[in-house]
Order: sequence, then C-alpha cells, then structure tokens
Amino acid sequence: MAFLDYILGRPLSSDEDKDERVGPLAGISVFGLDALSSAAYGPEAALTVLMGLGAASVAYSVPITGAVCVILILVYFSYRQTIAAYPQGAGSYTVARENLGPTAGVFAAAALLIDYTLNVAVGISAGVGALVSAFPVLQSQTLLLCLCILALLTYMNLRGVREAGLAFMPPTYLFIGCLAVVICIGLVRATVSGGHPAPIVMPPAAPQGGERASWWLLLKAFAAGCTAMTGVEAVSNGVQAFKEPLVNAARQTLTMIVVILIFLLVGIAFLIPAYNIVATQPGSPNYQSVLSIITQAILGRGPFYYVVLASILLVVCLSANTSFADFPRVCRTIAGDGYLPYSFTVRGRRLVYTEGIVVLTVLSGSLLIFFGGVTDKLIPLFAIGAFLAFTLSQAGMVVHRLKAKESRDFLGAATNGIGAIATGITFVIVLVTKFHEGAWLVVIVLPAFCLMMFGIRRHYTKVSKEIAISGPVSLTKPHQVIAIVVIQNLNSVAQKALQMAFELSKTIHVLHIQEESADRDFVKDWKTDAEPSIRGAGLPEPQVVILKSPYRKVISPILDYVWGVEKEHPYNSIAVIIPQLIEKHWYYNFLHNQRAALLSSILLFKGKSRVVIVNVPWNLRSHEKDRSMRT
Amino acid sequence: MAFLDYILGRPLSSDEDKDERVGPLAGISVFGLDALSSAAYGPEAALTVLMGLGAASVAYSVPITGAVCVILILVYFSYRQTIAAYPQGAGSYTVARENLGPTAGVFAAAALLIDYTLNVAVGISAGVGALVSAFPVLQSQTLLLCLCILALLTYMNLRGVREAGLAFMPPTYLFIGCLAVVICIGLVRATVSGGHPAPIVMPPAAPQGGERASWWLLLKAFAAGCTAMTGVEAVSNGVQAFKEPLVNAARQTLTMIVVILIFLLVGIAFLIPAYNIVATQPGSPNYQSVLSIITQAILGRGPFYYVVLASILLVVCLSANTSFADFPRVCRTIAGDGYLPYSFTVRGRRLVYTEGIVVLTVLSGSLLIFFGGVTDKLIPLFAIGAFLAFTLSQAGMVVHRLKAKESRDFLGAATNGIGAIATGITFVIVLVTKFHEGAWLVVIVLPAFCLMMFGIRRHYTKVSKEIAISGPVSLTKPHQVIAIVVIQNLNSVAQKALQMAFELSKTIHVLHIQEESADRDFVKDWKTDAEPSIRGAGLPEPQVVILKSPYRKVISPILDYVWGVEKEHPYNSIAVIIPQLIEKHWYYNFLHNQRAALLSSILLFKGKSRVVIVNVPWNLRSHEKDRSMRT
Repeated sequence: MAFLDYILGRPLSSDEDKDERVGPLAGISVFGLDALSSAAYGPEAALTVLMGLGAASVAYSVPITGAVCVILILVYFSYRQTIAAYPQGAGSYTVARENLGPTAGVFAAAALLIDYTLNVAVGISAGVGALVSAFPVLQSQTLLLCLCILALLTYMNLRGVREAGLAFMPPTYLFIGCLAVVICIGLVRATVSGGHPAPIVMPPAAPQGGERASWWLLLKAFAAGCTAMTGVEAVSNGVQAFKEPLVNAARQTLTMIVVILIFLLVGIAFLIPAYNIVATQPGSPNYQSVLSIITQAILGRGPFYYVVLASILLVVCLSANTSFADFPRVCRTIAGDGYLPYSFTVRGRRLVYTEGIVVLTVLSGSLLIFFGGVTDKLIPLFAIGAFLAFTLSQAGMVVHRLKAKESRDFLGAATNGIGAIATGITFVIVLVTKFHEGAWLVVIVLPAFCLMMFGIRRHYTKVSKEIAISGPVSLTKPHQVIAIVVIQNLNSVAQKALQMAFELSKTIHVLHIQEESADRDFVKDWKTDAEPSIRGAGLPEPQVVILKSPYRKVISPILDYVWGVEKEHPYNSIAVIIPQLIEKHWYYNFLHNQRAALLSSILLFKGKSRVVIVNVPWNLRSHEKDRSMRT
Repeated sequence: MAFLDYILGRPLSSDEDKDERVGPLAGISVFGLDALSSAAYGPEAALTVLMGLGAASVAYSVPITGAVCVILILVYFSYRQTIAAYPQGAGSYTVARENLGPTAGVFAAAALLIDYTLNVAVGISAGVGALVSAFPVLQSQTLLLCLCILALLTYMNLRGVREAGLAFMPPTYLFIGCLAVVICIGLVRATVSGGHPAPIVMPPAAPQGGERASWWLLLKAFAAGCTAMTGVEAVSNGVQAFKEPLVNAARQTLTMIVVILIFLLVGIAFLIPAYNIVATQPGSPNYQSVLSIITQAILGRGPFYYVVLASILLVVCLSANTSFADFPRVCRTIAGDGYLPYSFTVRGRRLVYTEGIVVLTVLSGSLLIFFGGVTDKLIPLFAIGAFLAFTLSQAGMVVHRLKAKESRDFLGAATNGIGAIATGITFVIVLVTKFHEGAWLVVIVLPAFCLMMFGIRRHYTKVSKEIAISGPVSLTKPHQVIAIVVIQNLNSVAQKALQMAFELSKTIHVLHIQEESADRDFVKDWKTDAEPSIRGAGLPEPQVVILKSPYRKVISPILDYVWGVEKEHPYNSIAVIIPQLIEKHWYYNFLHNQRAALLSSILLFKGKSRVVIVNVPWNLRSHEKDRSMRT
C-alpha cells in the first residue's frame, strides 16, 4: 500500500473533496485544452479545403471564421445557461434527458462519449505526428510515443483533478501567450503597413487555382472550420469539479475559454489575407502547418519561432486531457441512471472516477494501436458527435425555459432555439460533407452504442424489479438446517469442517465419494477415528453416506445428492460444508485438485434457493498460532 | 454431454476396464511403433556417419548392426524379466526406485518422460518432412501438418487405448509386410546371383571416400545406430494395458516386437553391402533415404515402391503413438508416489489418464511450434534418455535378483549385469559423441526436471504432515456461532441471507457500509422494514453495525470488523454470510460489482482459523418455482 501511496498519492477522504476542486485558472487547463487547441487546426482545416482556389482562398478566411464564431457564441450562451440550470454537471446528457426524454439523452451521451474517445486518439496522434515530422528519426517510434503520452495523461488524471490541472497549466498559458504575441505583432505590423506588411520569411507561393468557389466548397470549408468548436461543452459536463460557488467558477471558466478562443480564431483569420497565406498539401514533402507559416512570416525563424511551435505541439497533445476530465464524469452520470454499469459511479482513492479513466485509456489506446498511432482517418468523425450533442442540448434548453411556469424566459428560449437550429444545420452539413470520408461510421456506431446503453438499463430494471421488496422483509421461524459435509480423508481439514458442521446444525450428512485411487477404507477409518470422538463429545450421530462413482466423477454425484436432499426436505435450508485447503502461494495450487473451488462455484451458479455454500478454509503454514488459541 | 459422447465415445465405467485392454496383436501397434519405426532411421543414421569412407562404408553395415542387435537382445531379456517382476507397469522407474533408491527412480522417470516428449515431436516432424520432400507444394504447411497429426494422435488416444490400438493396426502391419517383402526378395536375389545381384534402379554412386575408418568414427556410427533401440522399454511401462494374463500378453508382445525389429535390422544390414548402398547427404538436392534406395534397387520404381514408401512415412508419423501410450502411464505411477501432481492419477471418461495425454500434447506441440515443425536439431537428444533408462533399469534388476533371499537368480543377475554395463557404455558413447550437437542440453534439462519432481514430493510431504491427524479426530462441544451478514440494501437477496443467518445462529451482526453513492438511509429502512418482522417472528434482535468508509473502500472495513470480532471471541466460530446475486449469463456479471465474490476470496485466502464463509446465492430468473415451494 505504501508503494501505491507513493505512486498515486495518499488516499483522499471523501471530506477532502472540496480541496480537490479547481478554480477558473486551473479549470482552463482541465476543461479548456480541447477547445483552445482547436485554434491550431480549425483554420487550417478550412484553408486546406479551399486549396483548390489558389491565391483566392485567403479572401474566405474572415467570413468563414465569422460564421464559425457566430455559432460559437450561440453555443456559449446556451452552455452558460445550462451550467446555471444543471449545476450537477453532465450538461448535454442531463439537459436532453430531462427535457426531451431518455432517448435524446442517451443519444447525446453516446455522441459525447464517442467524441471524447476520438479526441484522445486524434489529439495525441496529431501532436506526435507534428513532433515526428520535425524529428524524422522518431518516425519508427510513433506508436510508442503515442502510448507514452496516453499513459502520462492517465497517470496524471488518476492522481486527481487538481493535480492534473496544475500540471497542465504551464503549457496551456505558454500556448495562449505565444499565440497572443504572434497575433498582436502581426496585426500591428499589418495596420502600420496599411494592410500588406512584408513577411520576414516569405510564405509558400499559392498553387495554381483553377477551381471556382462553389457553395458546396464553401460549405465544406465551413464544416471543416467547425472542428474548432469541439470541446466547448466540456465545462458544462464538469461543473462539480469547480470550487464553490460552483456556477460562478464554471461560468467564468467557460467565458474565459470562449473569449480566448474567439480572439485566437479571429486574429488568425485576419492574418491570413494580410500575409497571403495558403495551406500546403498535407503529406507532401513541403508541407508546413498554417500556424508555422504565419509565425515565420511575422517573426522569422528565430528561437521564439521554435518556442511557439513547441507550445502548439504540447497543447495539441494535451488537449486529450479534456476528455479525461469529462468522459468519466459523463459515464458517472449516465451510470447513475442505469445506462452504464454502476461501477462507473464509484470514486477511487484520489476522488476521481477511476473506472471511467481506465475505460477511456483502454478504448483510445486500442484505437491508437489499431491505427498504429496514425489517426488522420478518424478526423472526419470528430465534430459530428460534438454537434449532435450541441443540438440536443440546446433544443433541451428551449423546452426547459418554456417549462418553468412562473419565470418563462422567452428571450433565453429564442437564443437557444436559434442556437439549436444553427448547430443542427451545422451537424447536417458536417455529416453530409464528411459522409464519404468516414462519417458514415458514426451512423453505425452511435445507434449501436445507444442500443447497448438501453439494454443495460433494461437489464438493471428487470433485476431490481425481481429483487425488490415492497414493504417489510418477510422472515419466518428458522427450520433446522441440514448440513452436508464432504469428507474424503479424515485429516485436520476435514476435522475442522466436521466441527463446523456440529456448530451449525444437528442434522449432519457426511458425504464420501469412493474413488478408485483411494488407498484407505473410509468407513473403517470413520468407525475407529471419528465415531468415538463424536460420542465422547456428546454430539448427534451424523449419517455417513458413501457415494460410488463408476464413471470416476466427483462433482456430479455430490450435486445429485444435494439436490435430492433439497427435494426431500421442502422446508429446511441445506448448508453444503466444503473443507478447502488453502496454499500460501498461488502456484502450489497446481498440486491440488481444485474440486472444492469447482464444487463451490457450481453450487453457487446452478443453485437452488435453499442451498447455501459454507467454505471452511484450512490455511497452510499459518495455523500454528490459531490452532493453539482454540484448544 | 451428448456432444461429448459423440466425439469421445460414451463414458466407460471403471468395471469396463477389462474390455479396454489389448492383446499382443493390437499391443504391437500401441507400444511397438516407436521401436519398429526405428528400422527406418537407425541403419540410415549409422551409414550417414560413415559417408566419409565412400564405397568402403558398406563393409561396416553388418558388424555395426550386429553390435546393436547384441545390446538389443540383452535389453530384451532384461525387460522380459522386468515385466514379470513388476507387472504394475512403469518399468524403468519402478525397477530403479525399488532397487536403487528414489533418486535413481526419479532420474529414470525424468529421462523417459523427456524421451517420450522428444519422440512425439521428432516422429511427427520426420514423417511430415518426408511427405513434404515428396510433395514440395506442402512445404509452407509443414507446421500445420505436424499439428494436425498431433491432434489426430491426441484424439485417438483420448478415445481409449483399445481404439487407438485398433486404428493404428493396419498401417503397422502394412509397414512390417512391405519391408518383409522387400528384404526377402532382396536376400533371395542376392543369394541366387552369388552375392552381387544387378539392381533394377542403380543406387547413387559412392562419393570419393578419403577418410579412414578410425575407432572414433566407428563409435559414432554405432551410437547413431543405437537410435534403432529406442522404444524397446515401452511394453514394460504399459503392462497394465494388456489383457489377462497380463505378464504373458506383455511378454509375447515384447518378443514379437524385438524379433520383427531384429529381422528388419539384420535384413537391411545384409542388403547394404549386397547392393553397394551408401548414404546420400541429407538436405542435398539428390538426397534419398536408404530404404528408398534399397527398395528401388530391388523392386524398381513401380507402384509397389510407392506403397512401401507411404507405409514407412505413415509409421514414422505414428511412432509418436507409443509416447501417448506410455507417457501418461509413467506420469500416473510417479504421481502416485507424489513426484508429480496427483491429478495425473485420475482416469477420464474413456479410462485413459487424460491429464498425461493433454500435457504430452502441450509439451510436444510447443516443441513443434517453437521449431516450426522442423525438429532435426532434437534428434541428437533422442537416444540419451532411453539409454539412461535402460542402464538404470537393468542395474535395478541386478539388485532385485540378488535381493530375493530364497531364490537368488545368479544367471539372471549376470544377464542384467552385462546388459547394464553394455547399455551404460553405450549411454556414455552416445552422450560423448553427440555432446556437441546438443546432447549437453539433456545434461541441463534432466537434472532440472528431477529437481522439480523432488520439490513437488517435498511439498506434498510437508502438507500431508501438516494436515495429518494421528489417531481419532478431536471434536469439542459446539460453541455458539456468530453470524455476520453483510447487507447493503433490504431486497430479496438480503432477506434470504438474513433468514439464513437466523437459521444458523442466534448471535447476528448486520453489517452495512455507508457508501457515498447510496440514496437511501439504511438505518431508517431497517427500523421500518426489518425490525417489526424480526419481532413478529420472535427472532433474536441482531446488532446493526454501520461502518463509515471515508476512503470509499468496501472490502477492507468488512475484513477489519470480522478480524475484530474473531479476536474478541476466542472460542466462537464466525460465519460471514455473503448474499450473492447470480446472473444466468456470465456477461451480465460486468453489470454488477464483484464485491461478494471478492470478499469471499479474500476471506478464504487471508483466512483466520475460526472464520468460515457462507455464500447465499440468489439466482436470477430461476427463482419463481423455488420461492413458491418454500412459502
């Protein structure tokens, strides 16, 4: 235990929950990394779609980002209200479930869970991908690097929310600071030079742009740009992780995240036409990320350039942390409602939902291993879950606002309504434009996941109905218990079991299976070694039953006998007493037949209602003391 | 079960043992294949060693085979006597153990077991190797073919000794018949033509023979030729598998095997100089086995040639069957003495020692997989175990003959003594000549295996000493049992456990762990729903204990409480009653915490001497009937 304390930190008492909570500053690094890191790939994704336009693409940067920001602001207001209305957390799921019914809730939850899992795999592999393209020697270690980062994130989150938040604060604020410096200097230069400043390092020339800007192309660019919005729901899922006053802290955090994100997105959007920056073909030898081109154009290739790039890379990797903060909380809430195994609701030694963290690690680790650490293919699937959750959550808020009889909030409802429609349309756009690239998979996986969750809930309901008692428990006057002791040899193990049988019951059957390999006559042994002792202690005479086993089976004759006794005595409980030799080291168990364990299991699983199993252990090499205590 | 009946045959009662035994004719195919198949590779192995001599090598065929046959006859007489002296089987081990002490016995047993394992791997891969060199398309499937044959052998042997014997009789007698025809025709032609008949197909020309026949070379050739003798001990290990009168049937079988083997070896030995047959380089493109060259020389390349070759190939593959007949029997005997787990002594549904068969399959299968189905490398290790067993067994027989006071048999002792010295010398020759090629491995593996066997025996002795009772069992007047029931919710599962507690004891502690996720007040529930029922039924009031668990642990507070009660009451037994919800399908168990199972296991393994575990199962969806029976 001391070792675990050292690795994971001492166990935290439930009372210490308050100390484990985070304020807005740490909250940004716990819940904001997913959203903020989007600034690094959202604009780039949109520009890449527009590459076919050549130099003309830069003109669309500001309008597309503008559209994205409008949706973002709508979503922001919606979640701000969600936080106040549902401070117990698990935003989209709770809102959808309470206002639109369980099916909508489960869909929102499933969408979020899938999204979080993808986010971990994609975030880590994107970060590692950037690192590997900077240092090609590491190419062969891609998967290993991915899994190491995954392990680090898992470890930090198992240590607790606060520790993870504190650990990831430095990279978060370094990233924000660096990008802010780049954007500010860039915008100042652009203004000073009257719109077209001279870049320090020339951006790559625009390719031949033969295409024309069709609506379809612009929609695709918008859909791609929308990936910048994923992660905005994160705070609403984790309200309970914040310091009191909960709602204020959570709202402040959300506001800060959104303000910073909009600043970054808009800043980049204006720098793109100013410096005539076009995307380069991903995967081609002269590929360079948009942020790298911008930074070089504004600041040149000095040391600061490398600091900026390192901070971006780090934050992209760590953006997976948001999933680790939220996935277990969402699981916890839906498990509380019976849609996932109850064990997701149990908090571990550091007050985090251990099982959720572990499951997320296993799922995303499997994705990483399956795709060898290269998860580009998964990017299309990415924003779909988020936008489905946005839509359901805002639609739920509309109903919520109109339900409250005294204080019906029509303005709020209208905001949410517009938000729901906007994100709904965006959801359809993303789904349609990315359908061929893999979004169809979501159409299969999401309902399957929902079906599983409904199945779990149905099973729980059935079980709890079966074992429920309405009113007081019904107890009867005890009948005599019939004890059946299985004894193969009269040794200490059997002696202890026999003594136990006399302590539990007055009607005792001693069961012995005649084995072909036996070298002693049990009946004779019993007569000479057991009967006098029984009479001497004034105990009731047990009934000795010798079972022949022509087919050398041991378990089934015992079972047959027990079921027979159970049938004969319709009112008595039957206690099957099983002496069990327990070795100190597991590997010694190969030397003993495992009949005792096997018999216990079969009696348990094929059980009849009045048969109970009494295991009487005889622990080898630890008995000297105990035995002397007794006699 | 009907499916198993169909696959493995109906279970055989222990009384049917007699019907499962074999007579000499089937005995040859059960125990003789290993020895007889040696005729196919023994002479070849010797000739291959002599290849360096060129055409001169043929002259040594008859003297070397003569030497091998002399040893073979000595060994034959020794085992003939062993069969009579130890009709319980497991020849070499029993003889060595009873007469030379346990260490010699264990060494002989270990040598035999290693030898049998190698025999399976080498036999199968030699047969498949020959098949593959005839049909090169199968090359890529070598391992698969090996494993299929292994599976077939395992399956036949699991079906019973008699069925395996009957199944393998046709190939055995086809092989003997074919070789007899070839040898007889060859010898007649040789005699008729005055010593040097004209071969129908010319044998390959002898290579340039620069070497001279040194003693070292001849010793190596002799050692190689001795591989023809492995398998001769087989009958003595399996005497119990024969029809009554055991000893006669076993002796007849052994005599027939040895007579046929000597006929084949001597016949081949004379054909070699008559037709000037030299070995070809194994692995070279013009490689051909000696028996193939002989058959072609005598009968040409007609259809019968292919029949002969097919029968050889088949018998080499099936020679592994001898190991399957003997390995489990040897294991059974030494397990009976405590040197291997006792489970090796249990006979399965078809009266065979299932565990021995399965272990042999796993060991030899692992060898095949590890070497990819090509086990030539193992051939050097092959005869060493056999000759060690021969030597120990014959040395044991010498002591045995001199021990019997009334009928001391000096002639017999002398035969055995000469045999022991001869096989002992052969053992040393084989070990020394093959040391570099891999025999050194046996020097490591064999003692390691022996150490393991001694360790097992030591552990069994220790355990049986610890649990043994000398004289009558000691029983005392029963003290009151203290029942501790663990109840988290007042449902049917808990109700059944509570009822059980009242039936087993009058002193009851109800244990409840306060969990943070609990949504009900247990104390209140208990007061309203349990207490009135208890009073109503006139039952003793249990002590309700609420355990707080600030660190959210469930098992350890229960354990602490149980150990505490055990300490406080130094004379009473403590029954921990664990209600357990049992699902019908295993996969539903993921939906429930496994605390009941975990608590049972920990109580069992960390057990104190006066704590017993009572599992009260509640089997879901099978209760309606039972419940109505009770109330």
